[in-house]
Amino acid sequence: MSDFDSIMGKIANDSVRVGIMGLGYVGLPLAVAFAKKNIQVLGFEKSATKAGAVNACKNYIGDIKDEDFIAVTGSGKLSATTDFSRIGECDALIIAVPTPLDKFKKPDMSYIAASCEAIGKHMKKGSFIALESTTYPTTTEDFMKPIIERESGMREGSDFWLCFSPERVDPGNKEYKTGNTPKVVGGLGKEAQAIAMALYGKAIEKLYPVSSPRAAEMVKILENTYRLVNISLINELALLAGKMDINIWEVIEAAKSKPYGFQAFYPGPGIGGHCIPLDPFYLEYIAKGFNFDLTMINAAGNINNLMPYRMMNKIAFALNRHKKPLNGSKILFIGVAYKPDIDDARESPALLVMEQVARKGAVVSYHDPYIPQVIDEHGNRWEAVELSDQNLAESDCVVFTTNHSSLDIDRIVNRARLIVDTRNAVKGVHIEDGKVYKL
Amino acid sequence: MSDFDSIMGKIANDSVRVGIMGLGYVGLPLAVAFAKKNIQVLGFEKSATKAGAVNACKNYIGDIKDEDFIAVTGSGKLSATTDFSRIGECDALIIAVPTPLDKFKKPDMSYIAASCEAIGKHMKKGSFIALESTTYPTTTEDFMKPIIERESGMREGSDFWLCFSPERVDPGNKEYKTGNTPKVVGGLGKEAQAIAMALYGKAIEKLYPVSSPRAAEMVKILENTYRLVNISLINELALLAGKMDINIWEVIEAAKSKPYGFQAFYPGPGIGGHCIPLDPFYLEYIAKGFNFDLTMINAAGNINNLMPYRMMNKIAFALNRHKKPLNGSKILFIGVAYKPDIDDARESPALLVMEQVARKGAVVSYHDPYIPQVIDEHGNRWEAVELSDQNLAESDCVVFTTNHSSLDIDRIVNRARLIVDTRNAVKGVHIEDGKVYKL
Repeated sequence: MSDFDSIMGKIANDSVRVGIMGLGYVGLPLAVAFAKKNIQVLGFEKSATKAGAVNACKNYIGDIKDEDFIAVTGSGKLSATTDFSRIGECDALIIAVPTPLDKFKKPDMSYIAASCEAIGKHMKKGSFIALESTTYPTTTEDFMKPIIERESGMREGSDFWLCFSPERVDPGNKEYKTGNTPKVVGGLGKEAQAIAMALYGKAIEKLYPVSSPRAAEMVKILENTYRLVNISLINELALLAGKMDINIWEVIEAAKSKPYGFQAFYPGPGIGGHCIPLDPFYLEYIAKGFNFDLTMINAAGNINNLMPYRMMNKIAFALNRHKKPLNGSKILFIGVAYKPDIDDARESPALLVMEQVARKGAVVSYHDPYIPQVIDEHGNRWEAVELSDQNLAESDCVVFTTNHSSLDIDRIVNRARLIVDTRNAVKGVHIEDGKVYKL
Repeated sequence: MSDFDSIMGKIANDSVRVGIMGLGYVGLPLAVAFAKKNIQVLGFEKSATKAGAVNACKNYIGDIKDEDFIAVTGSGKLSATTDFSRIGECDALIIAVPTPLDKFKKPDMSYIAASCEAIGKHMKKGSFIALESTTYPTTTEDFMKPIIERESGMREGSDFWLCFSPERVDPGNKEYKTGNTPKVVGGLGKEAQAIAMALYGKAIEKLYPVSSPRAAEMVKILENTYRLVNISLINELALLAGKMDINIWEVIEAAKSKPYGFQAFYPGPGIGGHCIPLDPFYLEYIAKGFNFDLTMINAAGNINNLMPYRMMNKIAFALNRHKKPLNGSKILFIGVAYKPDIDDARESPALLVMEQVARKGAVVSYHDPYIPQVIDEHGNRWEAVELSDQNLAESDCVVFTTNHSSLDIDRIVNRARLIVDTRNAVKGVHIEDGKVYKL
């Protein structure tokens, strides 16, 4: 039997063994999705803490239902290891490791490289390997393939197969989870695509095949570039609208009354999360290799970079109306999560604003119902304070940075002396003149 | 009875007389919508040809049903005049005149100014005046109001009322016409807003009130800026994708499989029509008065400006593969309308590409089933040719510039020697290698 027939057969009768590299917010839900469908899954994770948690049936990802997690880990369908030599036990390997940017906005491919090296060293012949991490187009063919071929001495297309299938995890999305979000699949060659469709079809309801890994790589970047560009556009328009005495949120709601051809984006203190502020710069990176400047992404990036400083100015000039300087004023930030109702502060614009105003001498504290402490990129640790009447009343300025739906806005507005509202949190309440300043 | 009570009473019992200034693709459908609801409408139009056509019951706007047009003009509910002194016969005046940009992309406000002067000279006390033309925020308050007050000697808010309510006409849209497209209404002051809501409510199914004319002005610009920016973004990504051997249309279709957070835009040879390429530059104009540069609009404008030249290059290098120069080659363009299935070539990118390649010595012809002749911005007149087998076979290159749905793509592909496809017209057909070049 050929290697291809062998893996297709194992997928068909559910005896395929799937290895997931990286058990974070992408890998772990995917591992659970496979295990729920009775596929044996082995998670590979450098962090002994995470691997140990999985093996102890302890769920650490909010988007996974505890009951599902306990069922698949309890039954042994999903287990985890820090021993990458066990890669050889798997028929299929799915890589879901981080692809951050370094501080010069250059892609940090080290996690993908390390995964490919481990796979190349330990995989058995006839393995299928898929990458899910967001990266620049051509990565699968031009970056992954040479590493795996070099480490394994095997040949892509005959000894192993490659695929790119971008994760579309939207943390906190109540409707769309790993299993029911349509998944784009771009195998390298017809056999790789056949294996990819059969394998992912076990765990994902709807697949969308494309003609190549590079097309699939581009899809994910297009989706998030669209968001970066539109959020940046509305942030820029919001800053102008403020100068023109126009409430941009009113304008957006009115534009939404157009029944076609418009999608609403909302301004804020910057763009956060681990996708939208990063992904477009992968494309910018590879584009330079083609002597191509992506001017829209560049302009969007500039706006996004400047937003925290503009928010600092907004706070400084709101205080100025109360004849107070930033230096020595008490500023209470409400919300450090990068979007509402989640517990994730990665790449959060709130942190950048906090850091800036602290640097100018402000006495900064924050409240977030979901995040008891955060560490900013310079290693400063911040502990959340209570949203007590006293804390509100003693603050020279309260800044809304995340729109958590559980916040009692009326109470905050009543108790606070001065508010800078970067999220249109204050609406439908009586607003004292000169008390609330919007973005 | 106060002037306010008087006009509100006339609206309530359908005896209000509405004057529409400008009987183009915005004004005439609106005039018909009012007249259909039994409101007496008088159209003011500089062009005696257009006014004569209305009075002769001859419809010249494709989006108006002939039966509706004949009914309201035949009954006398709608008539037209070139005599602006008859403005005094009207209780309400709605301005729907062009707001083009001059060749330095500066707003040409002369049509609005002329309308306001005529209204100021001839209106009776207690008139309501609404502007529908797309323009920069603050126009109603800071541009219209002073002209009308100066010409009339009357006072806004007591002697007459002002409103901005942007047109949302989408030529060729089968579902949304003037009557059933929700309409944003921004009166200046509470009385103006009350009159505007009552009056427009007669003809339009759904109104969306906003707090000020400037908010309403901003709404329209936001809607079209969103479109300009996104089309420019996808054009830029398409050019990069071409270099990377990625089919951008495949990528867009795959991205659409994401069930939230994405809206598809498609690349093309540039951006046409009388709204999207113009409206954002109104905002750019006023922004400069606030010492504010709109970097996203600027980047988008640059991409859009360059597209015709890039398309010329695409054609030149496609010919080059056949060892032919542009100079002397026969190029047949298919489609000069700015979007599919309409008969409007205003601001059409096809014309710009035709002009450029003709300037390089190409022998240019075009076919468009809806447009028998066009005049480019330099006054050159072009006559459509038939899409005969001979014309196709004799062309050195056939260029798809508009995706009219009635075109027989298979036949064109079979007959043509070389195709440059800027619209993804060629799909689902067998493509000879080296015969079709996509954007």
